[in-house]
Amino acid sequence: MSLHAEIHEQTAVWQHSYAQNREVVQIITQAVSLDNIHHAFIAARGTSDNAARYASYLWGAKNQLPVTLATPSLFSLYQQPPQLRGALVIGISQSGESPDIVNVVAEGKRQGQPTLAITNEPESPLAQTADFVINIHAGIETAVAATKTYTSQLLAIAMLSAAWNQSDAQFGLIEQLGEWGTAVLAHDEKIAQLAQRYRYMTQCVVLGRGYNYATAFEWALKLKELTYIIAEPYSSADFRHGPIAIVDRGFPIMAIAPTGAVLPDMRDLLQKLAQENEAELLIISNDEAMLNLANSPISLPTGLPEWLSPLVSIVPAQLFAYHLTRSKGYNTEAPRGLNKVTKTT
Amino acid sequence: MSLHAEIHEQTAVWQHSYAQNREVVQIITQAVSLDNIHHAFIAARGTSDNAARYASYLWGAKNQLPVTLATPSLFSLYQQPPQLRGALVIGISQSGESPDIVNVVAEGKRQGQPTLAITNEPESPLAQTADFVINIHAGIETAVAATKTYTSQLLAIAMLSAAWNQSDAQFGLIEQLGEWGTAVLAHDEKIAQLAQRYRYMTQCVVLGRGYNYATAFEWALKLKELTYIIAEPYSSADFRHGPIAIVDRGFPIMAIAPTGAVLPDMRDLLQKLAQENEAELLIISNDEAMLNLANSPISLPTGLPEWLSPLVSIVPAQLFAYHLTRSKGYNTEAPRGLNKVTKTT
Repeated sequence: MSLHAEIHEQTAVWQHSYAQNREVVQIITQAVSLDNIHHAFIAARGTSDNAARYASYLWGAKNQLPVTLATPSLFSLYQQPPQLRGALVIGISQSGESPDIVNVVAEGKRQGQPTLAITNEPESPLAQTADFVINIHAGIETAVAATKTYTSQLLAIAMLSAAWNQSDAQFGLIEQLGEWGTAVLAHDEKIAQLAQRYRYMTQCVVLGRGYNYATAFEWALKLKELTYIIAEPYSSADFRHGPIAIVDRGFPIMAIAPTGAVLPDMRDLLQKLAQENEAELLIISNDEAMLNLANSPISLPTGLPEWLSPLVSIVPAQLFAYHLTRSKGYNTEAPRGLNKVTKTT
Repeated sequence: MSLHAEIHEQTAVWQHSYAQNREVVQIITQAVSLDNIHHAFIAARGTSDNAARYASYLWGAKNQLPVTLATPSLFSLYQQPPQLRGALVIGISQSGESPDIVNVVAEGKRQGQPTLAITNEPESPLAQTADFVINIHAGIETAVAATKTYTSQLLAIAMLSAAWNQSDAQFGLIEQLGEWGTAVLAHDEKIAQLAQRYRYMTQCVVLGRGYNYATAFEWALKLKELTYIIAEPYSSADFRHGPIAIVDRGFPIMAIAPTGAVLPDMRDLLQKLAQENEAELLIISNDEAMLNLANSPISLPTGLPEWLSPLVSIVPAQLFAYHLTRSKGYNTEAPRGLNKVTKTT
């Protein structure tokens, strides 16, 4: 299947993955009670690391569970793993094959902590190492750039949050994801046209905060992998602490700014960038004022809850990266220098 | 004092800060035993966040203490702070004024956890909020780009590691930092010449792994703040998981690769980038083979222990950023759009 088809397949994948894992997350969250867990300790690389970023906001906000992002080299190259008392140790990996990620989960097990794998390969070394496995059921992903495996990882993370809370309200909103996904996929043609404007862009910054900090990282990663643009992700707060100095007239800023708690902060920054720095703005949002501020607006459906918005807001960003890759004349299926499975130690 | 003078002042600052804090870290580590702490929970922004990255490797490797980097917006904008049971809650901030950082420490206190401020301003809101304070004693920093306050934060983190371990060996090596610092400062003239080659560079990647992951982030931040170059930091492992696609012939890669456990992995990647991608390499190292691989080599003293190398390896990187700023004709003291104190919520 092609990258474009895999992007469009996502709503169907979510539905299938949800049905397959509805019981699985109940079993896991009953076995691993948050009363006994002081933090989730997550090892992941690349796209999966961006899914971990989503977990750090979602589980923090909705489940009061702090998330520690592992430093895998402590386990592998340094062979000096930290004490994991109080931790639920999680590996997230599409292929389940990267030795450094497997290592962290194996060490968690050695230390007697509960372990969980979130992967698309239930027979992989990662899945075989962990006590619990969530198979994200995304099906075979052929394109090197991950799309449906990323959003299926986010779905698993959202379902775990709902299951820990035993929240029918959360599950009910998750069941509406398909509708919202369909609404953004309908912008495909418009995004193809809008991408033309960026044919000669060589660098940009991608801004998102809170739940969509993950989206900023994932969008930037797709742009780097596919279009070879230097795209650097930031939260609106971190961007103010130094990096904002790089912005001069016409500098391209991509932003994900849906309605929610972080919107006022994103709005302040984007208004300043437009008015004082005369930056170029491409904004994904469902807020009218935000869309009016943009040189290139991409609209999200209204009513989308902020905590679920990362699954939906990355979809137009994936389409943008795809169309920009085509307009630059690069290979959308197999970027130079990359393989589907990356093994690092 | 000017940026250049502040860079050169660092060895003297370290000596003063060490003497002032030798007792302080004993008192803190006796009061906060690692037997009762499951993870350090650190809130920081910008340069201070890079110091937190150093802590995550150093305390992980030498003290078996996992480090969680806080997501401050959960505390401020979302007002849904995570449970901090088992955490030592730390705020790192040069000015001690950013409300989001103060918020995290205040919440730690509210939840009954021990709290620590690492700051250059012992009367600041951050210092007044925390149970324990390490004043980094860097003196007044006039230039907007932080240099001596950064390395003094690293020093405090290294001293806490030594004190938790009650390790005379670690303290003994810390006392040698001045010598190693003096050795790299002597390369000032050479670095000024070498920086000329990068006069028209507009983007680059900065690579470091393990302890020097922090150095990669801090070097990249100095380049962005001072030279307005898009400089993106990566670990050698994360870089392989996608972003490596951007590298074509002549693409500039900066790397920090001192002798140590991560050197073989850095060497593999840098050799590949040189041979297969024909990248341009500027390398800071004390390994002969690494220096020979570089278009622009900058040497570190031999005998420098890897765990302390981030204090020393950032110094030539600061000098490089300073000289490149001059060669590009920009203001070294007050970059556009930045203030010395940045307050975010």
